[in-house]
Amino acid sequence: MDLIVQKYGGSSLADAEKIKNVAGRIARAKEAGNSVVAVVSAMGDSTDELIELASQVSDSPDRRELDVLLSTGELRSCALVAMTLMSLGHKAVSLSGAQAGIRTDSQFGMAKIAELDPQRITNELDKNKIVVVAGFQGITPDMDTTTLGRGASDLTAIALAAGLNASRCEVYTDVEGIYTADPRLVPDAAKLDEISFEEMLELASYGAKMNPRSIELGMVYDTPILVASSFSDAPGTLIHGEVDMNKNVGEIRNRVVSVATDPNVAKVTVQGVTDRPGIAASLFEPLAAEGISVDVIVQNASAGGKTDLTFTIKREDLARSEDVVRQVAEGMDSDKVVSSTGLAKVSVVGTGMQDAPGYASTMFRALADEGINIEMITTSEIRITCIVSEEQMGEASRALHAAFDIASPR
Amino acid sequence: MDLIVQKYGGSSLADAEKIKNVAGRIARAKEAGNSVVAVVSAMGDSTDELIELASQVSDSPDRRELDVLLSTGELRSCALVAMTLMSLGHKAVSLSGAQAGIRTDSQFGMAKIAELDPQRITNELDKNKIVVVAGFQGITPDMDTTTLGRGASDLTAIALAAGLNASRCEVYTDVEGIYTADPRLVPDAAKLDEISFEEMLELASYGAKMNPRSIELGMVYDTPILVASSFSDAPGTLIHGEVDMNKNVGEIRNRVVSVATDPNVAKVTVQGVTDRPGIAASLFEPLAAEGISVDVIVQNASAGGKTDLTFTIKREDLARSEDVVRQVAEGMDSDKVVSSTGLAKVSVVGTGMQDAPGYASTMFRALADEGINIEMITTSEIRITCIVSEEQMGEASRALHAAFDIASPR
Repeated sequence: MDLIVQKYGGSSLADAEKIKNVAGRIARAKEAGNSVVAVVSAMGDSTDELIELASQVSDSPDRRELDVLLSTGELRSCALVAMTLMSLGHKAVSLSGAQAGIRTDSQFGMAKIAELDPQRITNELDKNKIVVVAGFQGITPDMDTTTLGRGASDLTAIALAAGLNASRCEVYTDVEGIYTADPRLVPDAAKLDEISFEEMLELASYGAKMNPRSIELGMVYDTPILVASSFSDAPGTLIHGEVDMNKNVGEIRNRVVSVATDPNVAKVTVQGVTDRPGIAASLFEPLAAEGISVDVIVQNASAGGKTDLTFTIKREDLARSEDVVRQVAEGMDSDKVVSSTGLAKVSVVGTGMQDAPGYASTMFRALADEGINIEMITTSEIRITCIVSEEQMGEASRALHAAFDIASPR
Repeated sequence: MDLIVQKYGGSSLADAEKIKNVAGRIARAKEAGNSVVAVVSAMGDSTDELIELASQVSDSPDRRELDVLLSTGELRSCALVAMTLMSLGHKAVSLSGAQAGIRTDSQFGMAKIAELDPQRITNELDKNKIVVVAGFQGITPDMDTTTLGRGASDLTAIALAAGLNASRCEVYTDVEGIYTADPRLVPDAAKLDEISFEEMLELASYGAKMNPRSIELGMVYDTPILVASSFSDAPGTLIHGEVDMNKNVGEIRNRVVSVATDPNVAKVTVQGVTDRPGIAASLFEPLAAEGISVDVIVQNASAGGKTDLTFTIKREDLARSEDVVRQVAEGMDSDKVVSSTGLAKVSVVGTGMQDAPGYASTMFRALADEGINIEMITTSEIRITCIVSEEQMGEASRALHAAFDIASPR
């Protein structure tokens, strides 16, 4: 008997009808002879509604209390899904993160899973029950509730799949899988049947709607992840470690698998910093201490002992970042701190890129031909990212999709 | 330093503004030099909304899962109140029923508190924190969440007050205290300054909006309970064990303290039952097994070896009761099972009644003079209850309020 972990996102659970649909899908997996653990997110937009409610009573809600508040969304979903499964004639039980044995550190709002103790889950599976687990949450050694960060129900599912040695983790969402580009921007974007962990990790970090830590975890434990729609029976995209590269040998057009886009970008530049060892650390340490995640970092070549440091962040972190940076910049004899919003990241990703030259120049040429200015560039072995104007994000991704001829995916 | 336990009901926490008002009141109690534990209900009508949601996914929602679902309402409230207190500059922490050490049996939906382990609460109080506890919930020895029954946040508060040896328990709600009658029915109803546990227990059981088990608990542990409004600074009603009866000696008008009303009554009669030992047990055991609470029971004198058994229940339990009763009645050679709704209970309550005759006749006369038919009668030492037509409930309570001259309360 296979053990399958399924995960259903909030849009798949937005109302009673959708909950019944999800329960029906879980039931079918069980009826097909599998042991099933289902991880669920909060219903629809309820997490955002709770954050809004918290902001009405407090300017900066305490993180521990916010975690208690937000964790209730997933508790509601798992109880509702479990009772729906029972009304379909199945044995089922809902478990909170704590009951499911998800032990975390005490970093409220972005806790890390420290340990997994799935004893209760295996006990319930042994009783032939479908186990429905509240995603996104865990418990500290002091028995306080934590949350694992936005989108981290994926992480719960993949951690459980790894810890329980499941055959695979199925992530059900409102799209049919991973695409060669965002179909809302690129009309001829196509669904990929499979993609490697490495490529998916880059896509997730650069705009695809999956939690990058989840992909990392799947990669480390070699747990295949199927991404598919909860609203259809289309086959989805399998993220795994054994993508058959041979079948694409020589087909240079398929070495880039996807164009990733992320519109939510702001930029901060600290101008005229006195160039000496340690300036980057003294800037980025206090940002990290504030929990601000810095994305692209560029330091210009120094001229006359002075240098410019530029970095990008999520737009919602801009105000807090500026506060931090202005304080630090004073001690750096900086001329000025300037910032801008209205930016986007456009990336091309593909494992084939690492052994072959010319991808960067193809990318820059394609953007130049459309009159798109590149503000910043950053690369990894299997990814090239350009920061462009947000208004040109769609144009840029269509141009790259065409330039790399990725409309017919492997 | 006094330790005070406060409890705030759902109507006092219905939105962000009301939550801020409640936090302000809690803060004032702390600033006055007290240690404060605040027990909170779910916001507004959210419990009813969750029950409605559960009914959309399941015809008879599993009780364990329903408890997981319903317990989230109080978790939200306690997190929101704690973060609001922090934004007012106080140290505060929210605790779930489990964290507050409320250990219960496993009777989901109506669990009994088995044990109280307030270690975490006292630890947090020692750190000078205001402790905000989610009412209505506890945890089983298997670490499953339970709820204690509708209205049982009062029970949480009074159990904590007793267990922590608090000076008193303050129950804040949307009315200013306990009245001599329902002010919506009896215009000259007046607020009582004080009332005995025994009297309040009868009132709570016969229509007042308090949980009878809470009153019992306060009585057993001799914990004074103040019932007051969260929307005003009016002094409220103190429920306690030392009501000064002397000051009312000889004032017969004050021996009845209040008229209680409860419109939510249905009646079932099993006609022509063969009268033999054990018929009552064989009828009421299966009702109890279904969790149906039977209120008034009347068995008529037997004639020709046949008898009629009549009992009342809450209207919402009627359909389930009829199912149970029809099955049992077949084995009793009953002629017929008949039921009716549209009934109400009207009770007069007062400790003074137990030593003095004539209260029952005064009550029946007052109702007769208004042309109100009495369908059933039941009494305790300090209470007389008549079942009347629901339409005449207001008329009946006004007549009784006048007949016993209870407009000027002690």
